[in-house]
Amino acid sequence: MLTLDKIYHAAFVLRDVIRPTALISAPELNHDCQVYLKPENLQVTGSFKVRGSGYKISQLTEEEKARGVIACSAGNHAQGVALAATKYGIKSLICLPDGAPISKVEATKRYGAEVVMVEGVYDDAYNRAVQLRDEHGYTFIHPFDDENVIAGQGTIGLEILDEMDDVDAVVVPIGGGGLISGVAFALKSLRPDIKVYGVQAAGAPSMFNAIRDGKIERLDSVSTIADGIAVKEPGEHTFELCSQYVDEIVTVSEDEISSAILALMEQQKMIAEGAGAVSVAAVMFNKLPVQGKKVVCVVSGGNIDVTILSRVISRGLLKSGRTCNLCIELMDKPGQLRDVSRIISDCGGNVISVHHERASETADINGCYLRLVLETRNYDHINEITAALVKAGFKLV
Amino acid sequence: MLTLDKIYHAAFVLRDVIRPTALISAPELNHDCQVYLKPENLQVTGSFKVRGSGYKISQLTEEEKARGVIACSAGNHAQGVALAATKYGIKSLICLPDGAPISKVEATKRYGAEVVMVEGVYDDAYNRAVQLRDEHGYTFIHPFDDENVIAGQGTIGLEILDEMDDVDAVVVPIGGGGLISGVAFALKSLRPDIKVYGVQAAGAPSMFNAIRDGKIERLDSVSTIADGIAVKEPGEHTFELCSQYVDEIVTVSEDEISSAILALMEQQKMIAEGAGAVSVAAVMFNKLPVQGKKVVCVVSGGNIDVTILSRVISRGLLKSGRTCNLCIELMDKPGQLRDVSRIISDCGGNVISVHHERASETADINGCYLRLVLETRNYDHINEITAALVKAGFKLV
Repeated sequence: MLTLDKIYHAAFVLRDVIRPTALISAPELNHDCQVYLKPENLQVTGSFKVRGSGYKISQLTEEEKARGVIACSAGNHAQGVALAATKYGIKSLICLPDGAPISKVEATKRYGAEVVMVEGVYDDAYNRAVQLRDEHGYTFIHPFDDENVIAGQGTIGLEILDEMDDVDAVVVPIGGGGLISGVAFALKSLRPDIKVYGVQAAGAPSMFNAIRDGKIERLDSVSTIADGIAVKEPGEHTFELCSQYVDEIVTVSEDEISSAILALMEQQKMIAEGAGAVSVAAVMFNKLPVQGKKVVCVVSGGNIDVTILSRVISRGLLKSGRTCNLCIELMDKPGQLRDVSRIISDCGGNVISVHHERASETADINGCYLRLVLETRNYDHINEITAALVKAGFKLV
Repeated sequence: MLTLDKIYHAAFVLRDVIRPTALISAPELNHDCQVYLKPENLQVTGSFKVRGSGYKISQLTEEEKARGVIACSAGNHAQGVALAATKYGIKSLICLPDGAPISKVEATKRYGAEVVMVEGVYDDAYNRAVQLRDEHGYTFIHPFDDENVIAGQGTIGLEILDEMDDVDAVVVPIGGGGLISGVAFALKSLRPDIKVYGVQAAGAPSMFNAIRDGKIERLDSVSTIADGIAVKEPGEHTFELCSQYVDEIVTVSEDEISSAILALMEQQKMIAEGAGAVSVAAVMFNKLPVQGKKVVCVVSGGNIDVTILSRVISRGLLKSGRTCNLCIELMDKPGQLRDVSRIISDCGGNVISVHHERASETADINGCYLRLVLETRNYDHINEITAALVKAGFKLV
């Protein structure tokens, strides 16, 4: 059974494994409440996962340690298990589906695990891990539905309370539910008045649905930029704990998650992965009753592929008017590109891409389209540029 | 005269203004030494500058405080002065050249300053600030060449020593030299055995040149992504202090700075601006004799425009083989695009941009060019894709 003792014990044991992550004030994220971040993206391995796997592994018997551990994950759990096992000097195997990003495979190896690439998807890798466990007697480290794993994650609750004993609410991302189960249990055991809120991606609302319907269900598919919490089915322990200790669960959209990632970059100089940013998204977009309160958002991890980060930035720049796409219908005669360029330049716009395209069936026989991407300052600046082009007789489409 | 007393006093005074920034271990940045970061990008206002301006402003007389302060800056200094003045309840004016990025103007206003937009460049804004000072009796807060400002920056040296008394070397970015002057003075006064190294951008080597030539010179122009340290001329005080207390100054290239920014994002989940990343670049690219040593890199700030960040990422992805540009010469007949697409897809490449272009004077009359941008895993993956295309008879140009 999960007890507060166990979480205190985990905090003691983990002192040699984890890095302290002090709360960071984030006043700009929402002016109607006092927002603080618990930056587990700055944790070793780039996520909180090392807490749960670290405590789990520390509590194995000598015999179990001698045989080694196995896990199945393409993400943060893999790196947490690998690092924790290495710290305790024991062998770890991680089964990964063969489509897993190279960067994650490399990181897992770097932390000392032996990687087993399995043809297929996550379920295939999971089955292979179970098979290897049965054959070799490895201990399987579940990513969330395990009491010691949950106790390890719960240490985050103790740390928050230790640093800020007048906190009103704590907001926690939910995938399988291990993190919030530990945090909510720790907080509610010590201070039942503190609110604990959970956040899921709208594209993967497994715990949200389970709590709403009062029973565990399995989603057919999940789709979200927050891959770290794209879990189809909550755990049994975690479902029970969430039912009992979590005050409310809300969901956030993909655009809200992207905006939160961008806000954390711009305002807090921090990289969060999608899963790590959902707690911030919920507070930024007023999904929770925390007006006037002192709120801690757990930013659970920062392992986001820079390719995705680059897309988040591009989209954020477009949405905030700092880049814009223009399409101008031109007559195909000399001097048109010169005139357009001059107008844009006079307005202080910076052209970063040009595409000139003829012979569309909707355009005039002599017509063509000029597609431009500009760097702009904001929407007012875009309006200024488009107005100047229209005034000079150009047609925007 | 700068004294250790003054720096200790600054540390005491600044307790209510700044946020503690604990050292962060960064083992992946260079495996040949033990690297730690002093993350002043996580400081309030996103840079260390608030320390110097905070101490400077705290030491003004009541009469000076009543009149208010003025500064000239489009960057971190502006935000530092604005926040510090607001904390002490005094008025601040910041003169900015009218081309300054909107985001910086807005941030400066948000911290409570009155912004004076001046037509022209930095020098025009500076002249206007001096004129306003003379007219209204404001105190001018120099960005670096001021003893109290230097004392404020020096508190970083005390904090490093406090947290890690066995540090061997500290690496510090140099613009005008205020930061390194304070840090070097504090460290060398207490522990002359600790090495202090300075780093400048190769495109703005003003202090590097001054120390080499033994006299202050003015650069005609500066050009670097590290705009926070793009300073044409070092200060008199800072030149003296660097001559006396800094062990060595090195420069880093634009590509090295970009790589450091990307490494900080991917490995440390942190946003650094170019100026903030030069210290990391120097250690990553082995510019300093720190093999086997315990080294702290001061990451001085994180205020980078996301547009620039986006460019840094794009370039980093290209350089690490995670995106690639292909240009394929095709005969202009049906089915060619289909075949190319199929081959790339079979190899696991992801097409993110397509440009089809006819009638180049060097191509065959029926020929055309297909320009593609792909998401790839690494250089091996790119080689696999290009080999498959060549094997199928396509010609890459």
